Amino acid sequence: MTLNKILIISGTHGNEINPVWAANQFIKQPNTKDNNIEYKFVIGNPLACEKGCRYIDRDLNRSFGLIKNNLNSSIYEINRANFLVQKFGAQGSEPCEIAIDLHTTTSNMGTSIVMYGRRRKDFCLAALLQHKFGLPIYLHEKDKKETGFLVEAWPSGLVIEIGSVAQNFYDLNIINRFLIIINSLRDEINMLKNNEIQLPKDLTVHVHQGSIDYPRAKNGNINALIHPERINKDWKPIKKGDPLFIDMEGKTTSYMGEDSIWPVFIGEVAYKEKNIAMSYTKKEVITLSNKIFKEFSN
Amino acid sequence: MTLNKILIISGTHGNEINPVWAANQFIKQPNTKDNNIEYKFVIGNPLACEKGCRYIDRDLNRSFGLIKNNLNSSIYEINRANFLVQKFGAQGSEPCEIAIDLHTTTSNMGTSIVMYGRRRKDFCLAALLQHKFGLPIYLHEKDKKETGFLVEAWPSGLVIEIGSVAQNFYDLNIINRFLIIINSLRDEINMLKNNEIQLPKDLTVHVHQGSIDYPRAKNGNINALIHPERINKDWKPIKKGDPLFIDMEGKTTSYMGEDSIWPVFIGEVAYKEKNIAMSYTKKEVITLSNKIFKEFSN
Repeated sequence: MTLNKILIISGTHGNEINPVWAANQFIKQPNTKDNNIEYKFVIGNPLACEKGCRYIDRDLNRSFGLIKNNLNSSIYEINRANFLVQKFGAQGSEPCEIAIDLHTTTSNMGTSIVMYGRRRKDFCLAALLQHKFGLPIYLHEKDKKETGFLVEAWPSGLVIEIGSVAQNFYDLNIINRFLIIINSLRDEINMLKNNEIQLPKDLTVHVHQGSIDYPRAKNGNINALIHPERINKDWKPIKKGDPLFIDMEGKTTSYMGEDSIWPVFIGEVAYKEKNIAMSYTKKEVITLSNKIFKEFSN
Repeated sequence: MTLNKILIISGTHGNEINPVWAANQFIKQPNTKDNNIEYKFVIGNPLACEKGCRYIDRDLNRSFGLIKNNLNSSIYEINRANFLVQKFGAQGSEPCEIAIDLHTTTSNMGTSIVMYGRRRKDFCLAALLQHKFGLPIYLHEKDKKETGFLVEAWPSGLVIEIGSVAQNFYDLNIINRFLIIINSLRDEINMLKNNEIQLPKDLTVHVHQGSIDYPRAKNGNINALIHPERINKDWKPIKKGDPLFIDMEGKTTSYMGEDSIWPVFIGEVAYKEKNIAMSYTKKEVITLSNKIFKEFSN
């Protein structure tokens, strides 16, 4: 793949406002050496951004599996997904080879990378960032309930997920973290194209295994909350007997699996409606062949 | 005034979910001595709670000045305000003498009290809580742009405002703080009715002076953010020359008034649409006569 254009998407969720600010601030920076790679910037869901809500009709970042059969949908996000792919997709009018989708979470994930499936090019991009910053990587795969992610519609792409930060709350620390990532990604890709980069052979990823819902009453209402011992403990292992939830009477629900799990998106506000209190992963070490780093070289 | 019933309202804003949980948890507690005072609990805006948004048509907590002339409004919150007053107001079918309205904020206000105007009974309630916990008090008055607050529709009432916590995010620390306040208020009111309480002669309040909007572009978009030196510094004085905002180029806007001001609701997410980046106050010491503590005694 010849790498000419990279698409940076912010505001895929309209209430995640710090990436939008960071992207606008990045654009204002004086040009630096960019190795002939053009960066395109787009707001994923402008109407939701205007209204300060996650989405209008349905989650845009779960709508990219539906676009082929819905060319003239009445659903705003399906039309928007179509528009983004028709304009910036690999066969689009301004084709981009990589999509970087910038997100925030109310969970204490820190600065992290989310990958969807095991594409060689994605491993390469993730390795660049993990090598530089040691960022944790969440590899999402094999979950039939959660599909149609934006970056899957491009030949290669990652989500940068930073938290914790509240929805609709401007936080300069979070904005600065996005700027560091965007700037570094540009620098690293330049070095990669110039064969100036050496990467380790191994990549540690947290592989999605499933999700755990809140305990709920018969009417569907949540009736126990994330246990204080779990709050803010994303990426920290949970072992048998560790408490997960606590109800109004102080009764706890504990994890009873035999194997340790590594939780992510603990208490993410937007996932309550998806019946997800947290997702859980297992650690896996991926061995990278040197060949994959040539994916992006000319 | 004979005090028989106290109304505790939560969910006046549908995305402030911790007070609702705290109220439900309080109700489940075993009964304790209550001095014949009945506590009523109600969700202020049940439809907004269901949808996880602040309001449906307009802010319920700015709608209580409109109800007299709008008995059959098409606006959900005006009808809801009417319902609450007709049921629980002083002349309602289940009349309550005091309304305690439980709120959260995304600002770092801590546990605080908001009063609306200078009603003698409200000073008494506020003094009870300030005496016990040293809570800061924000006295909101003389602001023509922000009117129609819920507690103003009752003979006496306060807002308990706790932050920082994100909208729609369950936080057990915040819930516990509400439980402490509700339990303490009950205990203190019982002692007050039994003349078992001695209060100090002075009450320190932060009196509302005005609000400061974000710097904005011509199209209305915010183009500078709260300065890092101001973030989380609610209640901490701002003096001449202190930075307030910072834009994308790093240019700061500073406070140029001669007198120090004390800011509140710094960066509150819900106030962006009200063109408020922060409100500011001046400190005032109110001398209380002993008589006001007899307001609630039988």
